[in-house]
Amino acid sequence: MERIGIIGLGYWGPNLVRNFQAVLGPCAVWGYDRQRDRAAEVARRYPGLALVDDLDTLLANPHVDAVAVATPAQTHYTLARAALEAGKSVLVEKPLCTEAAQAEALIELARRRGKVLMVDHTFVYSPAVRKLHELVSTGQLGRVRFIDSVRINLGQVQPDVNVVWDLAPHDVSIADYLLGRSPQSVTAVGAAHTRCDVEDLAYLHLDYGDGLVVHVHVNWLSPVKLRSTLIGGSRRSIVYNDLEPVEQVKVYDCGVELRADDCEGRRQRLVDYRTGDVWSPHVAREEPLRRVAEEFVECCRLGCRPLADGEAGWRVVRVLAAAQRSIKAHGARMAL
Amino acid sequence: MERIGIIGLGYWGPNLVRNFQAVLGPCAVWGYDRQRDRAAEVARRYPGLALVDDLDTLLANPHVDAVAVATPAQTHYTLARAALEAGKSVLVEKPLCTEAAQAEALIELARRRGKVLMVDHTFVYSPAVRKLHELVSTGQLGRVRFIDSVRINLGQVQPDVNVVWDLAPHDVSIADYLLGRSPQSVTAVGAAHTRCDVEDLAYLHLDYGDGLVVHVHVNWLSPVKLRSTLIGGSRRSIVYNDLEPVEQVKVYDCGVELRADDCEGRRQRLVDYRTGDVWSPHVAREEPLRRVAEEFVECCRLGCRPLADGEAGWRVVRVLAAAQRSIKAHGARMAL
Amino acid sequence: MERIGIIGLGYWGPNLVRNFQAVLGPCAVWGYDRQRDRAAEVARRYPGLALVDDLDTLLANPHVDAVAVATPAQTHYTLARAALEAGKSVLVEKPLCTEAAQAEALIELARRRGKVLMVDHTFVYSPAVRKLHELVSTGQLGRVRFIDSVRINLGQVQPDVNVVWDLAPHDVSIADYLLGRSPQSVTAVGAAHTRCDVEDLAYLHLDYGDGLVVHVHVNWLSPVKLRSTLIGGSRRSIVYNDLEPVEQVKVYDCGVELRADDCEGRRQRLVDYRTGDVWSPHVAREEPLRRVAEEFVECCRLGCRPLADGEAGWRVVRVLAAAQRSIKAHGARMAL
Amino acid sequence: MERIGIIGLGYWGPNLVRNFQAVLGPCAVWGYDRQRDRAAEVARRYPGLALVDDLDTLLANPHVDAVAVATPAQTHYTLARAALEAGKSVLVEKPLCTEAAQAEALIELARRRGKVLMVDHTFVYSPAVRKLHELVSTGQLGRVRFIDSVRINLGQVQPDVNVVWDLAPHDVSIADYLLGRSPQSVTAVGAAHTRCDVEDLAYLHLDYGDGLVVHVHVNWLSPVKLRSTLIGGSRRSIVYNDLEPVEQVKVYDCGVELRADDCEGRRQRLVDYRTGDVWSPHVAREEPLRRVAEEFVECCRLGCRPLADGEAGWRVVRVLAAAQRSIKAHGARMAL
Repeated sequence: MERIGIIGLGYWGPNLVRNFQAVLGPCAVWGYDRQRDRAAEVARRYPGLALVDDLDTLLANPHVDAVAVATPAQTHYTLARAALEAGKSVLVEKPLCTEAAQAEALIELARRRGKVLMVDHTFVYSPAVRKLHELVSTGQLGRVRFIDSVRINLGQVQPDVNVVWDLAPHDVSIADYLLGRSPQSVTAVGAAHTRCDVEDLAYLHLDYGDGLVVHVHVNWLSPVKLRSTLIGGSRRSIVYNDLEPVEQVKVYDCGVELRADDCEGRRQRLVDYRTGDVWSPHVAREEPLRRVAEEFVECCRLGCRPLADGEAGWRVVRVLAAAQRSIKAHGARMAL
Repeated sequence: MERIGIIGLGYWGPNLVRNFQAVLGPCAVWGYDRQRDRAAEVARRYPGLALVDDLDTLLANPHVDAVAVATPAQTHYTLARAALEAGKSVLVEKPLCTEAAQAEALIELARRRGKVLMVDHTFVYSPAVRKLHELVSTGQLGRVRFIDSVRINLGQVQPDVNVVWDLAPHDVSIADYLLGRSPQSVTAVGAAHTRCDVEDLAYLHLDYGDGLVVHVHVNWLSPVKLRSTLIGGSRRSIVYNDLEPVEQVKVYDCGVELRADDCEGRRQRLVDYRTGDVWSPHVAREEPLRRVAEEFVECCRLGCRPLADGEAGWRVVRVLAAAQRSIKAHGARMAL
Repeated sequence: MERIGIIGLGYWGPNLVRNFQAVLGPCAVWGYDRQRDRAAEVARRYPGLALVDDLDTLLANPHVDAVAVATPAQTHYTLARAALEAGKSVLVEKPLCTEAAQAEALIELARRRGKVLMVDHTFVYSPAVRKLHELVSTGQLGRVRFIDSVRINLGQVQPDVNVVWDLAPHDVSIADYLLGRSPQSVTAVGAAHTRCDVEDLAYLHLDYGDGLVVHVHVNWLSPVKLRSTLIGGSRRSIVYNDLEPVEQVKVYDCGVELRADDCEGRRQRLVDYRTGDVWSPHVAREEPLRRVAEEFVECCRLGCRPLADGEAGWRVVRVLAAAQRSIKAHGARMAL
Repeated sequence: MERIGIIGLGYWGPNLVRNFQAVLGPCAVWGYDRQRDRAAEVARRYPGLALVDDLDTLLANPHVDAVAVATPAQTHYTLARAALEAGKSVLVEKPLCTEAAQAEALIELARRRGKVLMVDHTFVYSPAVRKLHELVSTGQLGRVRFIDSVRINLGQVQPDVNVVWDLAPHDVSIADYLLGRSPQSVTAVGAAHTRCDVEDLAYLHLDYGDGLVVHVHVNWLSPVKLRSTLIGGSRRSIVYNDLEPVEQVKVYDCGVELRADDCEGRRQRLVDYRTGDVWSPHVAREEPLRRVAEEFVECCRLGCRPLADGEAGWRVVRVLAAAQRSIKAHGARMAL
C-alpha cells in the first residue's frame, strides 16, 4: 500500500492518523474533514499529514489505495460504498454501518472489486482480549456459560446515535470473537433521559439457544466508569477489567463450589465463596489500534482477509440492529 | 409480647433466635425444626432456647403470641397461614410466599384476626439502605432515572428455589422501599446450568412507565462476590456497595456532564468523566435483623403496622412471580 | 489436659474461652477476671464456663492443668510466673512480657518445671501466614530482600502500652517466623499525640546485617485501616493484605525488571512496571486462634514444644524492647 | 521571555519541550543533548524545536533568555551555574542539586545576576497537592500530626543516583509546601540490593521537634506501584492517592475516635473503626508541568519569585543530603 486517506478528523480520526503514520511513514497519510479548521489543527499536530479539501479529490487520487472512515456512524455506509466504488480498500470505524443489509451490500461490493473491507473492532486487537480468546479457545474455562459485560460511564459521547450503537459494538464484537458463533435471538430494553428517543442506558441480552447467554449493560448516566466483563465457565471463570492498570485479566479456578449440594457444603459455600487459586496472566501494554493499522496494511498488500472483516462487521451490526428494534418494541424477542 | 416461636432452625433461623433472645430475653424464645438433631445443636449454642417436638404443640401454646417462619420459601404460605389461624402474629422470612394470591390471602387473614403480618425484608432495615432512602426521599438525587443492582456470587444456597427467589427479594424490596411505587411491567431472562429448570443466573427488568427502570442481575455462578447498587439521579447519583467495609454509600455530585453537547464538551467528558465531589456519609454498623426483631415485637405490643408489612411482601412477591413467568416465557413482558 | 483457666476476660479472653471450649468441651474451661461483672457477662455468653472468684483458688486447683493469660501486657510476667510456679502450663497473650530478662526467666522456669510455655502469636497460626512461610521457605521468592509491614488504623486499643507493644508484636512475630533468624540491630522512631509519652504512631527498622531489612509502620491515628505486608524477593515478591476477603496473598512474578539497566530497559520499566503473572493461592478461611488452642492442648498432652514457644516470645520481646529504647533515644541504633 | 533552551532531551526533557512550546510557541524552544541522535529523534516528534550542537552556542546566544536543565542530577549544579553566569534565568529539574552548599551558591548567583532560579518540584503544581495545601492551610485538619508518604514501584529509573535522590524529592517538596517549615533533624535507613552502594529502597524520617513527623518510603523493588500520602490531623485526616483516577484526595472526618478512653469506647472503636463522613473534593485533571512552565515564563517576564524558587530547592536538597549522610551512617540522626 502506498497511501491511505483518513476521512473524518474528529475524535477518533487523529488516532488513525498517528498510527498509520507510524506504520506507513509520516507522508503516506492524507486527511479530510468537512470542518477545515479542525483538519488544519490536526495537521499541525501531525506533521507530514497532507490535507485534501474535498472528498472526491481524495477518492479520485490513484496514489491513495485505501481509506479509513472515522465519521459519525450514520454516514459509514455511504462513505464506505463510495470508497469501494472508487477502488479503494476500506477500514471503517465501528460500527461498520447501522443496518445488516448495508453490511451485506458492502461485503458484496468489496468482493466484486477485490478490495479489503475491514471494521475497526479495536478491542479484538487488544492484548487482553487476545488472552481471553486464548483461554477460551483452549478450553481452559470448560464450557462457557455466560458473558456479562458492563460498559458504563458519565457522558454522552455520540451526537448521532444512542448508547447501544456507541458502546455496545465493543462488547458484541468481543463476544463474537470469543465465542465464534452468533446468538439465536436478542432482547433489549433501554431508556432515554437526556434526549428524547435517544437511549442513554440499555441492556442487551443475547440468547445462544443452549443456555449460553451474553448480557451487556451500556450506560451514559453512570456516576462511575466501569469496563468489566465476566466470563463464566464450567471449569474456570474470568473477570476482565479493562481499567485495571496491572491485573486486567483474572482467571478464577473455582469450579468446586458447584459440586456438593448438601447442607454442609451449602454452609461452606456461604462462608468461603471461592475455593481455588486466582491467576492473573501478564498482559502486554500495547495500543490495539496499532495492530489494527498493521493488519489492514498487510491485508491490502497481500490480499488476505483481516480478522475483523466485513462479515465480522455484519455479525455485530445484525445483533445491534436487532437490539435496537427490540428496545423500540419494549423488549420483544428478536430472532436472528 | 410474651414468647415467640421460631419455625425452622437451618441457615437463617439461628440468627432469629439470637436476635429475639436479645430483644425478649433468652427464655422467651422457643424453637422448632423437623430435623431434631439440627434443633438440638442450635439449642446448645443458644442457652435458654426451648425446643418443641412438633409444630402443633407450638401453635397450640397460648403463651406463644407470635412465630417467625424461617423455612424453605415453598412452605412459607402454609406455615404462615396455620400460625395466623392459630391466632399468632407472624414474621415470615423473605420472600413472604411464592404467589401473589397467597400473599393476599395472608394479608386478609391477618386483618381478620387482628394480628401482625411482617416479612423479613432485612435490607430495608439496614443503616445503609435507610441512608439511601433519606437521600432519595429528600430529593437530593433529583429525579431518580435508574437503579441497577448486582447481587452475584459463587454458590447455590437454596435447594428449593431458583436464584430469582433466593437473591432478588433483596433488590426488589430495596427498590420498592426507595421508590415508594410499583413497576408497570416486568421482563426477565435467565439460564439454568447446574440443575435443569432451576435458574442459577437471571436478569430482571422493572419498567415504571415514565423512563424509570430498575435492573437486577442475580447470579450463583459468578467467580466474584458483588453486592452493588447504582442509583442514577438527575442531580446526583449513588453507588451503594454492601461489601465495602467503610464507604458503603457514595454520593456523586456529577450532574454537570449532561449539559454541554458540543464537540469540546464531549472531549472534556471523555478526559474528565466526573466533575463534582464524592461524598460518603457515615453509616452505622448495626445488625439489621436486630431492628427487624425490635419492630416486630413493638408492632405486636402496640398493634401498629411494620414498615415491611404484608403489603410490602405482596408487592415484592408480585414482581418476583411476574419475573418467574417472564423467564419461562423467554423474556416476554409481564404487565402488573 | 483436663482443664484450663483463662485469666482475664476483657477484650481477648472471651475468644480464648470460645476456642478452648470448642477444643476441650464447654465444662473444661474456667475463667477469672478482677472485674466480676465483666466475668459474669462472659459466663452468660459462654454456658459451661466456670468462674472462680480469686486467682489463688484457680492456681491452687489441681484439676486445672494449664492457664491462659489474657491480661494487660504489663502483668503478663507476674501472672505467667505465678502460674508456672503453681505447676501449670501457660499460654500467654502477645507480647509474652515486656522485658527480655523476664522472658528468659519464664523460659527457665518452664524448663525446670517441665511445663509448656507458649505465646499467642496468633498470626503465625493463620492460613495466610502459613502460606507465606511455605512460599519463602521453599525458595520461591529467591533471596528475601525486605519485608515492609503496615498495621495502621484509628483507635487506641490498649490503655497500658503504646502502639509498639500493641500492634508490632504481630509484624515482628510474622517476620521472625518467615525469616527464621533475628535482626542484628533495631532502630525506631515514634510520636505521642493523644497521651504524653505513650506513642500512638511508630516506625521500626530491623537490620539483619546482610542487606535484608524489615520495616514496620504501626499507627493508631490513621484515618484508614491497613494490614498489608510486602515481601520483596530476588525472584518473586509477595503482597499480603489481611483485609482482602479473597486474594489475601498475591505472588508477583516480576524479577525481570531488575535485569537490564540501559536507557531502553529503563523506559520499558516506566511504561510496563510489572512483567510476569500475578498468582493468588487459595487461603483457607479458618480461625487462627483455634489452631493456637489445639496446639497448646496437644503440647500439654504430649509434652512437645509449640511453634510459638517461650524462645519465640523472647525473640519478639527482645526486638520490641530494643525498639522501645530506640524511640526514647530518638532513633539511636540498638544492637541485639 | 523570547526563547528558552532545554538542556537534556532524555526522559523528562521532551515533556519540557512540549509544554514550553505550548506556552511560548513551537519556534521559541531550542534543544540540546549530548546524544545527537536522541536530540534529532525528539526534534522529529516536536516540529519547530531548534537543535543546537554545543552547549556554549546555546548559552552564548543573546536571543535565548532562559534555559531548563533536565540532565542527570549530578550535573545540575555545573550546568545551572554556567547558565546563570551566562545571564540566563534557569529552571532546574528536581533535585536542584545534590549539596546544600551548591544550592546556596546558585541562589546567591541568581540574586546577583537578577535572574530567576526555579526548581521543577512538579507535584507542588498539581491540582491534587494544591487542594491538600488549601485544606491544610485553612486549618480544616486541625493540627497536622504526621505525614506518611509511600512512593514505591518496580524499576530503577536513574542510572546516576539512588532511590532517595530519584523519588524522595517529590515527597519532601510536597511536605515542605504543605507544612511551610523545615524539620529539625533527619534520620534515614536504606539498602542496596541490585547495585552496590546505590540504595534501591530507603526510609526517611523527618522530625519537626514538636511531635510532627514526616515519614517517606521510597522503593525501586516493590512488586506493586504505590503513590499514597497520609496526612493525619487532630480534627480531620487525608489520604492522597495519586494513582486513583477519580478520588485522588479523600478527607476523613474522624477526630471523634480519639475522645473516649474507657473500655466501652474502646470496644466501639474496634468494631467501627471510622466515624464521620468521607469527602472527596473534585480535583481537576491538568498537567502540573504546564503550570510550572507558565509560572517560570511569567516570573522571567515580571521578575517575580516562583513558588518553587531556589530557597525551596535548597530546603529539599538540605533534607535529602542529610538523609543520604544518615543512611551512610547507619541511621544516625542528622540535625539540620
